[in-house]
Amino acid sequence: MRIYNIIQKKRDGRELTTDEINFFINGYTKGEIPDYQISALLMAIYLKKMNKRETVDLTNAVVNSGETVDLSLIEGIKVDKHSTGGVGDKVTLALGPMVAACGLPFAKMSGRGLGHTGGTLDKLESIKGLRTEFSKEEFISIVNRIKICICSQTANITPADKKLYALRDVTATVDNISLIASSVMSKKLASGSNAIVLDVKVGSGAFMKDLEDAFVLAREMVDIGNSVGRDTVAIISNMDEPLGYAIGNSIEVKEAIESLRGNGPKDFVELCLTLGSMLLVLGKKAQSMELGREMLTEVINNGQAYNKLLEFVEAQGGDVEYIKNTELLPKASNIVEVLSDCEGYIKSIDAEEIGKCALALGAGRETKESSIDLAAGIILNKKVDDKVNKGDVLAYLHYNDRNKAKNVDVQLKNAIRIGDKNSGQKKLIFGIVDANGLKKM
Amino acid sequence: MRIYNIIQKKRDGRELTTDEINFFINGYTKGEIPDYQISALLMAIYLKKMNKRETVDLTNAVVNSGETVDLSLIEGIKVDKHSTGGVGDKVTLALGPMVAACGLPFAKMSGRGLGHTGGTLDKLESIKGLRTEFSKEEFISIVNRIKICICSQTANITPADKKLYALRDVTATVDNISLIASSVMSKKLASGSNAIVLDVKVGSGAFMKDLEDAFVLAREMVDIGNSVGRDTVAIISNMDEPLGYAIGNSIEVKEAIESLRGNGPKDFVELCLTLGSMLLVLGKKAQSMELGREMLTEVINNGQAYNKLLEFVEAQGGDVEYIKNTELLPKASNIVEVLSDCEGYIKSIDAEEIGKCALALGAGRETKESSIDLAAGIILNKKVDDKVNKGDVLAYLHYNDRNKAKNVDVQLKNAIRIGDKNSGQKKLIFGIVDANGLKKM
Repeated sequence: MRIYNIIQKKRDGRELTTDEINFFINGYTKGEIPDYQISALLMAIYLKKMNKRETVDLTNAVVNSGETVDLSLIEGIKVDKHSTGGVGDKVTLALGPMVAACGLPFAKMSGRGLGHTGGTLDKLESIKGLRTEFSKEEFISIVNRIKICICSQTANITPADKKLYALRDVTATVDNISLIASSVMSKKLASGSNAIVLDVKVGSGAFMKDLEDAFVLAREMVDIGNSVGRDTVAIISNMDEPLGYAIGNSIEVKEAIESLRGNGPKDFVELCLTLGSMLLVLGKKAQSMELGREMLTEVINNGQAYNKLLEFVEAQGGDVEYIKNTELLPKASNIVEVLSDCEGYIKSIDAEEIGKCALALGAGRETKESSIDLAAGIILNKKVDDKVNKGDVLAYLHYNDRNKAKNVDVQLKNAIRIGDKNSGQKKLIFGIVDANGLKKM
Repeated sequence: MRIYNIIQKKRDGRELTTDEINFFINGYTKGEIPDYQISALLMAIYLKKMNKRETVDLTNAVVNSGETVDLSLIEGIKVDKHSTGGVGDKVTLALGPMVAACGLPFAKMSGRGLGHTGGTLDKLESIKGLRTEFSKEEFISIVNRIKICICSQTANITPADKKLYALRDVTATVDNISLIASSVMSKKLASGSNAIVLDVKVGSGAFMKDLEDAFVLAREMVDIGNSVGRDTVAIISNMDEPLGYAIGNSIEVKEAIESLRGNGPKDFVELCLTLGSMLLVLGKKAQSMELGREMLTEVINNGQAYNKLLEFVEAQGGDVEYIKNTELLPKASNIVEVLSDCEGYIKSIDAEEIGKCALALGAGRETKESSIDLAAGIILNKKVDDKVNKGDVLAYLHYNDRNKAKNVDVQLKNAIRIGDKNSGQKKLIFGIVDANGLKKM
């Protein structure tokens, strides 16, 4: 078998065999096939597409390129949640304690990564003392004892995906359905959960800008998961504006804590309830999404979800005082208002632009080596469809480094469009995809 | 300007600007842009194509990536001839003396390259003492004195083409019209001639297997040449069977010498007359192709073309006795007949397969480091449409190394198909493309 012939075959729009897909993933992982041949193949895949069979085979080949995690020692059905990434997405921080409080094990391996803000692990570091490095045995023991643990990924899972993603990122071959779906799903499958809930974001702050594309991606990922025997469902949720009000690290932790205390932003809480009820159904803790939602609302109202958060922080070595008194969390030395120049209704808030503002203030990493300012970020004061008067606060910039804040106010104002009408049509969840099909909402 | 955006633009099927094309060729030549980004771009170009404007810009960018040759000190119009490559293509060896004998300067820079047989320079080395390394001054002086010199390319012309070709060769992005046309034409333009005659081969032994594709490629190259002010014409010629009877090095030299003596194979002589008359017309030595053909026939019949060959060999330091007595040329220690197993008419001779047989016998280079056996090769005894009886000689294998000859007889017989009818439709030249359009023949 020769990589040249595989490139040629896909270039000509033909279907690759399972063996051919295994051959190129295996050869690339081992460094036997050079980047320049794989990038040509990726462009051919991008333009000529892969069918479902090829996509499933690609996913399996990537899973087999590295280690897989064995969660069988954790009692019960393990359900994993994955978001395709958005701005202000602090879901894991609130969702974990919510479902754990309902008795569902939440055994989450998380990452740091590049983004407008840090990843879940970075955000958790806002809490003094909180550890995220655990041995496999510690991880399993914590989940079995309190039903929740969030730790960093240590196993060498899906090395092929890391290499492929780095290459796609510099060769304009990222946004292809098969490549995205296999990348996401290979990591989920290697992580050892029994069932998977996917949150596919769509809108200005998401990877997928178009609703139809998001449905197709969700369908593809759900099919991959189910075809290899993992119960998989997806929701398609709105990322046209940031989720909640806070975009940063410690300020997102604070918003998540408030949500567990029953004071969360409407959209954020709604998303947590939807995803949480799906998790409970797949984990056989609830018979229906409606019943799952009731359970989750109950554990927020009766304080069990908040208590689970305290228990989780303590188990991972964190100082629970930081949760009880959020004033202790890292705080920016400058908090500056951005005021509206006009009046009307918020027509749109470009989530990606807001993300870039947060990044500029220091909330994220520009390169793998950058350090994160845990206190930096943006707290919106208005959301889409809100009424705004001239001089009203649109948002607060939180920053420590004055140099980084230059012009961010202008950039932020440009990302917010104000019109003369309230659309009244704002939607959070566009649909649910499961093995039986798509339910639009 | 970023290479990422250029890849993305072409991936989406959009037209690249002149600046963008210059940017990527320049960056790639300097090693500032890595192979893996260029290979993704090449695949995008392959699949989304380039228009004429982009192809001309690409050609110019490649010309500008290195040195260009200044032939202005050579008197008269300099016309270059280029073949897209075939099996048994010894045209330069006969054509040069023919047109030089008609007074047209033939200032040819030639290469070695990889192929079924050596390049023109390798073939010329069959003649004892013949040099092909000259300084620019020597080269010009020889052409001005005797109207012909064939030397090796020493200037660093089109380095971008060398890098691009090596990359295309391993990423299945070779056979795209724009990429082929710009590769060929950049080298021709950098070589400094005033006018260009192209011999676009089509058939089993050529790059282009399909006649329509060959017309398109010819059109593209002619348009590039004319758009930058070089008179350019192309013929499309048949490469379904090898040209002439000899495929090798010294045996091709011998066939070329015989042709200048008036005893050449019909198809080979016809091709030389056609290309030669085009050269004479572009070089303003003949008013029409018909008149050019008369001049060329005349210099063969009156011995001036053959004498020009002797003059050329002498000027380049070669032993003219090797021309006068071709038995002195390198000769294989084994000459073995391949006999026909059946009777009928030769239906087809797969030129590429015959080329591979010659390569197997040692006539060409498998890798850049391989040495060539100048005596090795194949002399056909039959051509398409010839009658053949059982036991007739189909071809002679010439070789020195017995190990290399193993199974070549079987391979050769498999390349020759014998049927029960004479097609009577064999064609050598399918058409001529010039600035005014295509004339099919």
